[in-house]
Amino acid sequence: MRVVVALGGNALLRRGQKLTDKNQRKNVGIACDQLAPIALEHELVVSHGNGPQVGLLALQGGTVPGVPPSSLDVLGAETQGMIGYMVEQELGNRLPVERPLATLLTMIEVDPNDPAFENPTKPIGPFYDREQALALVEKRGWTFMSDGDAYRRVVPSPRPKRIFELRPIRWMLEHGAVVICAGGGGIPTMFDAKGSLVGVEAVIDKDHASGLLSIGLNADFFVMATDADGVYLDWKLSTQRAIDHAHPDALLAVQDDFPEGSMGPKIVAACEFALATGNPAAIGALSDVGHMLNRAAGTIVTTETTGITYRDA
Amino acid sequence: MRVVVALGGNALLRRGQKLTDKNQRKNVGIACDQLAPIALEHELVVSHGNGPQVGLLALQGGTVPGVPPSSLDVLGAETQGMIGYMVEQELGNRLPVERPLATLLTMIEVDPNDPAFENPTKPIGPFYDREQALALVEKRGWTFMSDGDAYRRVVPSPRPKRIFELRPIRWMLEHGAVVICAGGGGIPTMFDAKGSLVGVEAVIDKDHASGLLSIGLNADFFVMATDADGVYLDWKLSTQRAIDHAHPDALLAVQDDFPEGSMGPKIVAACEFALATGNPAAIGALSDVGHMLNRAAGTIVTTETTGITYRDA
Repeated sequence: MRVVVALGGNALLRRGQKLTDKNQRKNVGIACDQLAPIALEHELVVSHGNGPQVGLLALQGGTVPGVPPSSLDVLGAETQGMIGYMVEQELGNRLPVERPLATLLTMIEVDPNDPAFENPTKPIGPFYDREQALALVEKRGWTFMSDGDAYRRVVPSPRPKRIFELRPIRWMLEHGAVVICAGGGGIPTMFDAKGSLVGVEAVIDKDHASGLLSIGLNADFFVMATDADGVYLDWKLSTQRAIDHAHPDALLAVQDDFPEGSMGPKIVAACEFALATGNPAAIGALSDVGHMLNRAAGTIVTTETTGITYRDA
Repeated sequence: MRVVVALGGNALLRRGQKLTDKNQRKNVGIACDQLAPIALEHELVVSHGNGPQVGLLALQGGTVPGVPPSSLDVLGAETQGMIGYMVEQELGNRLPVERPLATLLTMIEVDPNDPAFENPTKPIGPFYDREQALALVEKRGWTFMSDGDAYRRVVPSPRPKRIFELRPIRWMLEHGAVVICAGGGGIPTMFDAKGSLVGVEAVIDKDHASGLLSIGLNADFFVMATDADGVYLDWKLSTQRAIDHAHPDALLAVQDDFPEGSMGPKIVAACEFALATGNPAAIGALSDVGHMLNRAAGTIVTTETTGITYRDA
């Protein structure tokens, strides 16, 4: 099978953890323990988030006198290097030495008129207290939203329209390489009035980007690995129910019940993929990735079923 | 022809320029004006330096409380993303939209016993005055060397031994893609006692890395683009002579006459390539890249000649 696995931000850095090389490498290693057996059996594409990383690089920007901060497209490219390197190295350490791996820089086109530019929703970087957030509003002009008791910087997250490196990614798979790509949702770009491709001050959602990638590659299975073991209706309420499998139409019909920031994009990405390809998508825990491919864990979104089936029903 | 062009640090950032997105992008654009016509006629691989960039990221490291600086291998990976992105985008803007481009993360093995680890020689980051340099010795434990009136941080620069992504790079070329790789001399790695590949606190010389890449790809031509229009004997002396073409044996015989930091590695890389492949290497100005391929500019190092021929002889 051709399998795309999207690693959530939490797979790379747990909430409350400091963004150190050591923490990241350890978490990437845990993820690669799950991914290596899949790579041995299947064509594997790995994508990943970059929220904490791109936010940290943005914070570090401007700290050297005379050098203004880089824009988010450039920082996104840096995180593709940073995280891609760790994934390629740690995954390579868990595979036979002759297995090729390739980390491909990935640029993705967005629509200049995407309404997301007027409404920043994507949280990046660390959690701040109110005072820190207000200081950064003042100093950097950033936008913040509250997240529990804390605050996070939010940036526009336009929908991905086209992946420029789709052919190289496909060629690498055809040659048997494990491919790491579309990191951080891809580098956001758009065509300017002169027809030149330019960078965009935004961070694309990595689940939407990974869904578009999976459709473009006609993947047999698209897995989103996160810290929840599946999609829940009425999450954290007494009526909470885990979804075992669902037809995309049925899931999309209840999508307003899921929060925008976390499960929402995953559900839309899974449904769009299943509808476009007829192949299944799964949302579940990183530790269950192998089981999800056997449809034995996570929430499976597939056109081969009807309605929604709950896990304990 | 299969052509490898190594872009010198000066091609990306001129001495005295601030390391801003805008300056870098402008310089990358100038380089891509030269590279695009080559890509139209030939298989093209572009590599590049990262001295100013990796040095800046290192300086920015540790500026966010509680987050220690990343190591040089991780920062090197970040610069492959940053610079690779700009080159891919700017070069793509100058080529037909259907031409594929691929920027590949590149890890390179070094020898843990390389004497370079005891003797840091590779300058990275900005120029400092004496006071700034001393403050950084105190605060970060870095090593500095003087460069004219200024100081620069120096780090170990071990010789590259093996490029892990050579097969993916070759496959991309076979599919007609322009490949950007081995940025910043590649990410330095080594095998540890347990046989795992790990990162190394170093920056590999990009000319040595590009030479190894050119040999591995069996390139037909290896070009190092810099700010000088060729190799000079007795540089800046009244006896100064520009070398038009030279046999590698003859050039290696006088290599002690060239300074370690600038022309030295280029000359060794050119000679090693010419001897290993029987194909020519060229060292010269970025603006002459096209002419160098016709052997009409720069210093040509080739086994098809004998001795050293000077330009005005």
